[in-house]
Amino acid sequence: MRSMRDYGCFVFCLLAALLAGFLSFLFVLVWVLHWREGLGWDGASAEFNWHPLLIVTGFVVLQGSAIVVYRLPWTWRCSKFLMKCIHAGLHLTVLILAIVSLVAVFDFHNTQNIPNMYSMHSWTGLTAVVLYGVQVLIGLLVYLFPFAPVTLRATLLPFHVFSGLLIFGAGIATALMGITEKLIFALSRSYNQSYSQSPPEALFVNFLGAFILIFGAFVFWMVTQPQWKRPQEQVPKTLPPNGGRASGAEERGEMSADPENSEIEYNREAARKRYVILDEAGQRSTM
Amino acid sequence: MRSMRDYGCFVFCLLAALLAGFLSFLFVLVWVLHWREGLGWDGASAEFNWHPLLIVTGFVVLQGSAIVVYRLPWTWRCSKFLMKCIHAGLHLTVLILAIVSLVAVFDFHNTQNIPNMYSMHSWTGLTAVVLYGVQVLIGLLVYLFPFAPVTLRATLLPFHVFSGLLIFGAGIATALMGITEKLIFALSRSYNQSYSQSPPEALFVNFLGAFILIFGAFVFWMVTQPQWKRPQEQVPKTLPPNGGRASGAEERGEMSADPENSEIEYNREAARKRYVILDEAGQRSTM
Repeated sequence: MRSMRDYGCFVFCLLAALLAGFLSFLFVLVWVLHWREGLGWDGASAEFNWHPLLIVTGFVVLQGSAIVVYRLPWTWRCSKFLMKCIHAGLHLTVLILAIVSLVAVFDFHNTQNIPNMYSMHSWTGLTAVVLYGVQVLIGLLVYLFPFAPVTLRATLLPFHVFSGLLIFGAGIATALMGITEKLIFALSRSYNQSYSQSPPEALFVNFLGAFILIFGAFVFWMVTQPQWKRPQEQVPKTLPPNGGRASGAEERGEMSADPENSEIEYNREAARKRYVILDEAGQRSTM
Repeated sequence: MRSMRDYGCFVFCLLAALLAGFLSFLFVLVWVLHWREGLGWDGASAEFNWHPLLIVTGFVVLQGSAIVVYRLPWTWRCSKFLMKCIHAGLHLTVLILAIVSLVAVFDFHNTQNIPNMYSMHSWTGLTAVVLYGVQVLIGLLVYLFPFAPVTLRATLLPFHVFSGLLIFGAGIATALMGITEKLIFALSRSYNQSYSQSPPEALFVNFLGAFILIFGAFVFWMVTQPQWKRPQEQVPKTLPPNGGRASGAEERGEMSADPENSEIEYNREAARKRYVILDEAGQRSTM
């Protein structure tokens, strides 16, 4: 952080994102519980309702949180490995929620004899979840497990960051399409009214869409500001010889999870805590 | 460009974006001419059809092109002022097309007694166009006209770049919502069939949505790669004293449009052409 003012700006953006994210979760929950048929696993609408709830909570709010987690200044003294575990854990949770939400909607369609995969929403949504699964798998193999060579980690990193943000953005666009579809279908069926008459439910859910967009905007702002990157870590050259790896992968923010190197890891950890510097120049490995 | 390989990657991305953009234009044109009621200005559906045609052509494809125009390597020998004029001209064209497309849809709604501004699509769409108008106005005042001080230009630049990309992304999400709405309404009215039966028109228009997303993805990739930025310009210190401004605004890619400084401009122009260097480090002013 360059200054207290800059720190204040970050905290403001984070609080705004958390508020918009919480309101998104609250509004989708109230929508399915109060305006729609609630939640259940009966092949009917209550089962479908898990789909918007889990997608907004997981694929939008939790995924956005997983993306910004490296940027929280109070985590910069935590080890990079710990932060990677949190990042990966959140993304894995999102993936599981997304899969459950897809099972809910396919099961609902099959029970109700509604065709699957006919809409643009379904095309982009399934593509986004499949790509997200690939992204999480590659992320685990390349960045969390200790097998991948440093050059591969460095080469793939711009793609990892970009595809993560692209899937997040496409997820938001897909969620907004899905909400639009659901409002049109549900309002015309439930009360013999239409979306165009602006019943209270329609207005309420339009605000849900607005909160999702505001949440996405703040997440994108936070992760694209170079001064808010997790600082580059520098490990001193007095480490054991094989600790020299640190000047490659780890200096760019990578970290081995090899349990056999626990003592080296401990030394690195101690060194890291002494040598965290706020060098903001250059390109670092992870957001 | 770091290498021929990197140059090849850029050209590939550009051609892919151009192809996806052209297919988006072609598909929306065929949609309104072949599958829908064509184009007209009669208060009926043919007037509405200007709305998707102009939004996809302008707010998506042309806006994306305006965003990447600084990144074309073969324009790096052109003056920054010329490139700014092209950037501004394209964005002004997009704004005019967007306003005409809004007039078409409001006029259609009013003639057909359909309420305005009830849907999430209309909320996010009108917000995006209003913010886009503000963005274009501020862009002209701050970056094209010679009034704004260098510090203001530098301070506003991250916001200018970010809000431009945010509006572009929100425009794509809004377009996909609008296409979803139109497909549901139009298919149920025209042929007594439904979107869920996947008639040929629905499949065709789903591909339109896919091309729009692919176009957006390539544009975002091109404008976020630091090695593809327009190179920083360095003007030698032998310029007239007031040419010293060049080391401030212009070294960061800004340029005065003051016609009274034409001789200085000429000298700068000559110097610029001699001193274009491919320094890829650091943050520069404009994408």
